[in-house]
Amino acid sequence: MKQIRLNAFDMNCVGHIQQGLWRHPRDRSADYTSLDHWVELAGILERGLFDGLFLADVLGIYDVYAGSAGRAIAHAVQVPVNDPMLLIPAMAHATAHLGFGVTANLSYEPPFPFARRMSTLDHLTRGRIGWNVVTGYLDSAARAMGRERQVAHDDRYDVADEYMQVVYKLWQGSWADDAVRRDRASGVYADPARVREVHHHGTHYRMDAIHLCAPSPQRTPVLYQAGSSARGKRFAGAHAECVFLNGQAKAAVRAHVDGIRAEAVAHGRAPGDVLAFVGATVIVAETTALAQAKLADYRRYASGEAALVHASASMGIDLDRYGMDEPIAAVPTQAIASNLQAMAQQAMTKRKLLDRMVLGSRQAPIVGSAAEVADAMLAWVAEADVDGFILSRTVTPECFEDFVALVVPELQRRGAFKEAYAPGTLREKLFGGGSHPPRTHPASRFDLS
Amino acid sequence: MKQIRLNAFDMNCVGHIQQGLWRHPRDRSADYTSLDHWVELAGILERGLFDGLFLADVLGIYDVYAGSAGRAIAHAVQVPVNDPMLLIPAMAHATAHLGFGVTANLSYEPPFPFARRMSTLDHLTRGRIGWNVVTGYLDSAARAMGRERQVAHDDRYDVADEYMQVVYKLWQGSWADDAVRRDRASGVYADPARVREVHHHGTHYRMDAIHLCAPSPQRTPVLYQAGSSARGKRFAGAHAECVFLNGQAKAAVRAHVDGIRAEAVAHGRAPGDVLAFVGATVIVAETTALAQAKLADYRRYASGEAALVHASASMGIDLDRYGMDEPIAAVPTQAIASNLQAMAQQAMTKRKLLDRMVLGSRQAPIVGSAAEVADAMLAWVAEADVDGFILSRTVTPECFEDFVALVVPELQRRGAFKEAYAPGTLREKLFGGGSHPPRTHPASRFDLS
Repeated sequence: MKQIRLNAFDMNCVGHIQQGLWRHPRDRSADYTSLDHWVELAGILERGLFDGLFLADVLGIYDVYAGSAGRAIAHAVQVPVNDPMLLIPAMAHATAHLGFGVTANLSYEPPFPFARRMSTLDHLTRGRIGWNVVTGYLDSAARAMGRERQVAHDDRYDVADEYMQVVYKLWQGSWADDAVRRDRASGVYADPARVREVHHHGTHYRMDAIHLCAPSPQRTPVLYQAGSSARGKRFAGAHAECVFLNGQAKAAVRAHVDGIRAEAVAHGRAPGDVLAFVGATVIVAETTALAQAKLADYRRYASGEAALVHASASMGIDLDRYGMDEPIAAVPTQAIASNLQAMAQQAMTKRKLLDRMVLGSRQAPIVGSAAEVADAMLAWVAEADVDGFILSRTVTPECFEDFVALVVPELQRRGAFKEAYAPGTLREKLFGGGSHPPRTHPASRFDLS
Repeated sequence: MKQIRLNAFDMNCVGHIQQGLWRHPRDRSADYTSLDHWVELAGILERGLFDGLFLADVLGIYDVYAGSAGRAIAHAVQVPVNDPMLLIPAMAHATAHLGFGVTANLSYEPPFPFARRMSTLDHLTRGRIGWNVVTGYLDSAARAMGRERQVAHDDRYDVADEYMQVVYKLWQGSWADDAVRRDRASGVYADPARVREVHHHGTHYRMDAIHLCAPSPQRTPVLYQAGSSARGKRFAGAHAECVFLNGQAKAAVRAHVDGIRAEAVAHGRAPGDVLAFVGATVIVAETTALAQAKLADYRRYASGEAALVHASASMGIDLDRYGMDEPIAAVPTQAIASNLQAMAQQAMTKRKLLDRMVLGSRQAPIVGSAAEVADAMLAWVAEADVDGFILSRTVTPECFEDFVALVVPELQRRGAFKEAYAPGTLREKLFGGGSHPPRTHPASRFDLS
């Protein structure tokens, strides 16, 4: 039976996806500045054999709703938001198997020091690091970086393609596998003949340097991507090893998954070289009734306005300007190409949008007993051809404790979830092959022979 | 009696200051990719009541000696070198009081995400973070960043002055102390009226953004600086709270300390607003004879060539081109203004330089019993008016274990070293005042009222 892969979805901030739940008496998301909080979370996830903790990030603020960042700040909608990478070393030290997928925006990270950060994390985690490649979608971030506005959507992906080449050259092509000798007797730490300077003189980047890091266990981190535009899918087909999708309808998600696998094949890769994860929110309890009661309890704290703040920024449409029953039909100029755009094109109204925002987001939760949740998850795997889930937090960390206590054993009973971690790096655990990108992946083209 | 301040000096690499010692059978510097290694070190230092661990960094390689990076790679002279920031969260989680001074090169760190990284670290460490402000000195780093060469020395400090303004605005002037309400009842996480957008339209930087982080315990990290040129001293006098100096002669170091304190006064600060730390290498054992034996044992592993690789890059002079008795008289064009330059101007020869390189660096070690080491340290404090020491590693971590076991109790017996940590943040521990920069510090000019 196909083994379900699980990622927890979190962010170094208060309000991540389910807005308003920080107000719940048992919610501890406001402890995001505490290392204990994150180490505890990592322990829960590793106990539950989660494949990874996926850390979102955004370098900018949500200032589209009502034309200012005011409501985002009041509701803590992904602001304040601290750096996600710096959470990983403490969690890695407290765990042995859990993977870490970290979001980093390449538009604002010069490739040379960024490649070093990721190699450092790959070393320190012993090969458990993944990178969620994003190019950003906020003008507020561009203004923070001294630009008038961001680069146009498709051009960002052209920049991204070149950026990937640069970091592949550093990760794969600068130090040979046998470069580090660590030979105390001869006094040779590394063989200079096995270290090559990278020369990249491209359209957007220029670099003449060796990579500063010795080869890390995975070299290139496991690559995650969540782009859903046509150009984004092409990028994912070329580079991504794990993709994240969102959607309410299994058929639509299936079409999306098929599209990305087809892009992968068009790039000379196998359909199974890309794992597809669908976003999900789970409310589970011992019985159906208790799960519904828990949902009702959580819902009291969800914030519709905060969700509109988030949706406005994602869509690039100020939803504050719309009446409740007015079709949301504006064409966004600077937005992530996402399901939200599709919704706008379907003449969605704000009333319908708010109706869907069960827990302060548009993601309808899976609610029920462990058996019901497992049924729903297995249906997603069967019908949408996804490989696993990325589970949003609701009331944290109890939502993950509940999942680990109730759903994980149920999935194991059904033979759909592992009983123990596989050995090796994150890439080996996920794909069963080697720790480096496979021959069919574009990173391997830059391998130093 | 004046209390001696202690920092350990280390780097996320194999060969830091004392080159070649990685070959010693008990040396574990090649474990730099292991979090256990760093967590163990932090535990040793906290047991010894060290004020801080100071982490050096360099974003580039030493390719001046013999015109290539070959010998640096072979000897592991600060290459490979991993990112230092990512070591701190794991060490912070394992300790409660130890401070962390981390080197970051502002020339290659866009201020907006960099300010977030430092605020994140300040949150996660509960106010134990310091930043060693450097502007870089390697053309190899500039080439890695897509530039032909680096900005000229004094111009780098002009850029740095503006950079400091930008990050001060973010750290001090974007969120009021009372901005974060965390009020579950009213649903107000933060008060938008108490969060201000930073507008900076300067010569080198442009930014329109709020800081992404809520106020961290110290806001601005404790600022460290090690510049020794006239321009560097002026910068230190304006901004630095801790300065690092190197020198063999107490009178020269005293003059340097006096000069920086005078610069501080010229900037409206008190002489005591700047703590001066002098670099030192200590070899201690139960008796003088055992310490000398330990030195002799360590020396067998020191590498003169590796030290010349390091010195060549620091001076910007290829020492491979000089005969042993030829005065080193070339005027460097791109180098750190340092004691090394002074040495070059004094017509130092390579033979004399190598004679001084007792342990693979130019820093002459303090060798002896605990009493002898304490005598030497107290003489430095009395005669050079330094506040403390930054202790280079030799054979690690045993050098720090030895120091903690032998020298710390001796300094305590003499009333020259604390018996317990003071409460509060790193700034409170070091200066006894508040956790934020004092009113006389330029950062406080940007305070949001």
